[in-house]
Amino acid sequence: MLKVVIIGTGNVAFHLFKAFQTTDKVSVVQVVGRNKNALSSFEGEIVFETDLKKVKSADFYLLAVSDTAVSEVAQQLKDKTGIMAHTSGSVSIEALKGSDSYGVFYPLQTFTKECAVDFSVIPICIEANTGTALDRLGKLAAILSDFVYPISSEQRRQLHLSAVFVNNFPNHLFNIAATICRDHDLSFDLLKPLIGETANKIRFLDPRTAQTGPARRNDIQTMQRHLDELKHPLHKKIYQLLSESIRQAHEEKL
Amino acid sequence: MLKVVIIGTGNVAFHLFKAFQTTDKVSVVQVVGRNKNALSSFEGEIVFETDLKKVKSADFYLLAVSDTAVSEVAQQLKDKTGIMAHTSGSVSIEALKGSDSYGVFYPLQTFTKECAVDFSVIPICIEANTGTALDRLGKLAAILSDFVYPISSEQRRQLHLSAVFVNNFPNHLFNIAATICRDHDLSFDLLKPLIGETANKIRFLDPRTAQTGPARRNDIQTMQRHLDELKHPLHKKIYQLLSESIRQAHEEKL
Repeated sequence: MLKVVIIGTGNVAFHLFKAFQTTDKVSVVQVVGRNKNALSSFEGEIVFETDLKKVKSADFYLLAVSDTAVSEVAQQLKDKTGIMAHTSGSVSIEALKGSDSYGVFYPLQTFTKECAVDFSVIPICIEANTGTALDRLGKLAAILSDFVYPISSEQRRQLHLSAVFVNNFPNHLFNIAATICRDHDLSFDLLKPLIGETANKIRFLDPRTAQTGPARRNDIQTMQRHLDELKHPLHKKIYQLLSESIRQAHEEKL
Repeated sequence: MLKVVIIGTGNVAFHLFKAFQTTDKVSVVQVVGRNKNALSSFEGEIVFETDLKKVKSADFYLLAVSDTAVSEVAQQLKDKTGIMAHTSGSVSIEALKGSDSYGVFYPLQTFTKECAVDFSVIPICIEANTGTALDRLGKLAAILSDFVYPISSEQRRQLHLSAVFVNNFPNHLFNIAATICRDHDLSFDLLKPLIGETANKIRFLDPRTAQTGPARRNDIQTMQRHLDELKHPLHKKIYQLLSESIRQAHEEKL
């Protein structure tokens, strides 16, 4: 049985903890965090510790802390045996330098306490300072997920940037649509099946092929009417810029 | 059994035809279109007609034609008994004026020939010129869907505009992410679970609450690094504008 210490009490820590609880191949021997109250939503037998000096021995130390804290926490644990890995999309593996065995264990998903996730379909991106460490991180990842990818820090940074485009920004566009609905006495629920299908479609079609709408077919009349209807200046700007980007992306090459 | 004539052979016509085939409460007595070849993907017994003068008698004439053709086609069918309804998100009900009984039958979904859809969860927005016509359109809609909403032309226009924000624009952002992945030897498949969860989340959380990411937490350092990493000038602009819009939307009120 692999022994894991989880450092952190945020959403990633929470969901990793829950996922490891579903397998008897891993034992979470300790959860380490500054604030014991943050654990109220964690369920099950938890050995909790607030002092980084009292971290137990384990095969893996998973640092699910904020990006800015990774390096400092790693420094305090550098004499531990076992593999230390952070779970961040944007922090370089070099932030862990100083330990013998270190790497990255990055589950590419958005985590919210309220929403259960199926870890088996979440890509886990791994990286390590040695072949042995990579191999062992890969084995840990494969216990949780069917999709384990060794990728470099540079590639991971690009994935993290891409994630902003497929998660943060679309979610904000949903919020704009919710505002429009609210302003016109419409339930946002009306749009949820469309949102679901928008995501579903690109499982089978590449997004370029899946593109539809007035900008795609250069329907200037509809676009102008939409712009006239939008009240908020920033929403108008967003409409114009994204429409222009769609037009450019689909322009026939001469 | 309700008799329906479908005018049009595009994606909406195709999926309506398929959906009506699954119920014995409706018989599609005719599909009318200019081009017989467009029917090659329709399956089953189809009575096809290219001449609008030879449209059969039916209880409903569903006009699944392009927005610009609605009014002209309606004009040619105005002496038909039965209810004429267009399926467009953005055309006013007034485009059908001249018939006795007319209305709108707008399924709020994105349709692609390649992707099967479950009509029972697709909201169908209806509108009609009389109470009787509204009642009958509602009954037809309820055969296909559990979510039937009577809404006005103005509300429908706003929904159609919202649909651009939750479908066309997010899909384009997926395309930008696909470009970044391609440029860095990463499979776009890595992002698909995240895209699925982004859509899934807002079934339970309102999009404002679901917002995460560097712009949401005003993480200027990460945003600057992302901007530096983006190669395409339009992608930079999109990143800046959407981040600014997220910042504004989440600014604490004084």
